Amino acid sequence: MSAEPFFRSRWVPRPSHVTELPGDSGLPAGFRAAGVTAGIKPSGRPDVGLLVNDASEPVSAARFTASAAAAAPVLLSRERCRLHALRAVLVNSGCANAATGRRGLDDAAKTQGAAATAVGCDPALVAIASTGGISQFLPVDRVLNGILAARGELDRAGDASFQAAIQTTDAFEKRANLSVALPSGAVLLSAQCKGAGMISPNFATLLCFVQTDAGLSAETADLLLGVCVKRSFDRASVDGQLSTNDTAILMASGASGVEVNGESEDELLFGEALDALLRQLAVMMVTDGEGAARAARAIVRGGSQENVEAAARAVANSPLVKAALHGGDPNWGRIVQAVGGALGGQGLAEAPLPIDVTIEGVQVCSAGSAIPYDEGELDRRVQREEVEYEVGLPGEGAETEVFFSDLSKEYVEFNSAYTT
Amino acid sequence: MSAEPFFRSRWVPRPSHVTELPGDSGLPAGFRAAGVTAGIKPSGRPDVGLLVNDASEPVSAARFTASAAAAAPVLLSRERCRLHALRAVLVNSGCANAATGRRGLDDAAKTQGAAATAVGCDPALVAIASTGGISQFLPVDRVLNGILAARGELDRAGDASFQAAIQTTDAFEKRANLSVALPSGAVLLSAQCKGAGMISPNFATLLCFVQTDAGLSAETADLLLGVCVKRSFDRASVDGQLSTNDTAILMASGASGVEVNGESEDELLFGEALDALLRQLAVMMVTDGEGAARAARAIVRGGSQENVEAAARAVANSPLVKAALHGGDPNWGRIVQAVGGALGGQGLAEAPLPIDVTIEGVQVCSAGSAIPYDEGELDRRVQREEVEYEVGLPGEGAETEVFFSDLSKEYVEFNSAYTT
Repeated sequence: MSAEPFFRSRWVPRPSHVTELPGDSGLPAGFRAAGVTAGIKPSGRPDVGLLVNDASEPVSAARFTASAAAAAPVLLSRERCRLHALRAVLVNSGCANAATGRRGLDDAAKTQGAAATAVGCDPALVAIASTGGISQFLPVDRVLNGILAARGELDRAGDASFQAAIQTTDAFEKRANLSVALPSGAVLLSAQCKGAGMISPNFATLLCFVQTDAGLSAETADLLLGVCVKRSFDRASVDGQLSTNDTAILMASGASGVEVNGESEDELLFGEALDALLRQLAVMMVTDGEGAARAARAIVRGGSQENVEAAARAVANSPLVKAALHGGDPNWGRIVQAVGGALGGQGLAEAPLPIDVTIEGVQVCSAGSAIPYDEGELDRRVQREEVEYEVGLPGEGAETEVFFSDLSKEYVEFNSAYTT
Repeated sequence: MSAEPFFRSRWVPRPSHVTELPGDSGLPAGFRAAGVTAGIKPSGRPDVGLLVNDASEPVSAARFTASAAAAAPVLLSRERCRLHALRAVLVNSGCANAATGRRGLDDAAKTQGAAATAVGCDPALVAIASTGGISQFLPVDRVLNGILAARGELDRAGDASFQAAIQTTDAFEKRANLSVALPSGAVLLSAQCKGAGMISPNFATLLCFVQTDAGLSAETADLLLGVCVKRSFDRASVDGQLSTNDTAILMASGASGVEVNGESEDELLFGEALDALLRQLAVMMVTDGEGAARAARAIVRGGSQENVEAAARAVANSPLVKAALHGGDPNWGRIVQAVGGALGGQGLAEAPLPIDVTIEGVQVCSAGSAIPYDEGELDRRVQREEVEYEVGLPGEGAETEVFFSDLSKEYVEFNSAYTT
């Protein structure tokens, strides 16, 4: 872990009851992990990770991609696992096992079964996740060998090697070890996450694994993960492309002896910590990626949740807005164009649209019309590493935000290179 | 006009009853046009165009952007003009007069009034259109001077200078002069169109003006333009960004003496010609633009019109598909990812999705699973200038297509440069 603090975005302040621990401080009590090289990646880098919760009664929660082309490991985990009581997670990088049909499901089931045998539990207690190239079949034998090797290396300090095994094109590590001070006592919270600035189905995807030694009920774990994923990964867009393999899993061992009960002050503060953790990871994904110069946040306020959501997505996914962000160009006409195009195109609003636009605190558009502003000052502000766009639509009461990446020549170069 | 034929895409064969005329053959009888330099564009290139229909009873039809941030000239033309009987069209490039509020509407009305005076008609018979930078106020005095200058140069051979005055970043001219053989006699059909591969709100937009000396009723003109725009410009996507200023206007003089009556063989063949004209122009826009190496067509078939439409848009607007297209990379996993993400994300379909994918006639995916194919042959075929993706979804009876551009480093470079 670098000397840079984990909470490094101005959009995600570190909660005062959360302390960052060194990167080598290990997993919370009750967890062991390992990452090994099984030969799936041609690069020879680690590609099989195993994570185990040794608690007598493991608790967990999971969220998966909404893609209708969800990969085999997602289908299998979602349909065959007891997701509230997972004992282990098996992850491979280097192959997404997506668009692989029935054979893909069979392959996934074989690796799930092998991991269950290695860990000594029911296969339904082992979730699996994959990331890598779509359309390639899983090299099952290599994964099986990887499981055996990983089993021998399971260790509470194995989160760094586990992290290495789940990464693909990530330019930097997305891993955290936190201590959380709750009224009932201190608990640990750790996470390993992957997802590059270029969310590219041949290379990338979002995977996130979170562990805690707090005691959580299955209901609390599910509630907290659901809310926090909605406020983090669901609010991040690199290129508007939903992956086939996105997976987020929270596991609790209870080994700290600190119980986080529903509707308690403990739950509130634990939820705050988890929320900050996932939001910082989401911003990191948006910031990552070759050539990414700037990250942005679009905040949209107005009278209709449907409209503010559509407007925020339109801004975040506009290649014109993203290219201007990349170039440090305060081209706010593109914000108006993107919002007007989305709302009009979807039949949500009609012209004229009294839209307000403010960039990094400088208002440039009021009720749909250009207004005078300090151009030199705005020029300077859009050079910042994080740029914030605020959009006001008619009405009040609804608000949303989306974090997004810029669009760089390097993104195009990387994603137009011959990859198969 | 270049020696290259107008009908140059394999997706738009020239109808056998349509003949291409030389670029200097002039407008159909009844029309005069001119383009002049009024000093709106800093480059000193032509920027004000005037087009007049001298028929005693002019007939017309119009279509505009659906953007909720539609520019002042769109709002004014849509709400204040008798769009079925337009006498003239005033166009300026170099300024979109968008995001300009009440002042923008007043400015637009001034230029409309001046053009009406210059032509000698009611202002309600003059449509106006603008293209250029969003958020800048219209330099009204320059437009007024341009109108006076253009009035003095109105000529039946003025379509080339009119074309020059409406272009912005277009890499090549999009203009046609056609002769159409109808059962009742020959008529002329001409068009001037702008819209670059980079549909960028600071520079571009789609404008299309079509003239014919056929006799059309207002109802027939409206019906034909509506249907043909839906099958052409509505099926083209450069970057998924709906402009604030898109405008298409069809005008008929009737000067040929050939009447195209509703539900006649004449109407059918005239419609076929107009359809081919607009579809070729749409493909040209997709092909245009600095750095564009390849154009593509996504054809999606299935049982639900909503699903095939969402899938086709998802493929056409995926930066990953577009980057692969640019690089000549047969990365079909991105097709599956884009379709699955869109249908799943919008709640239109659930995994597993039995999707078929065929690229340039080579099937690569059947019922959601990779199948063996000749990789060398596919590699060769995706190097073509026009690449076709066919997607099959469950069911039958619905089908759609979208034409789209690739995503190049030059697109990013161009659109990330400081532009204000």
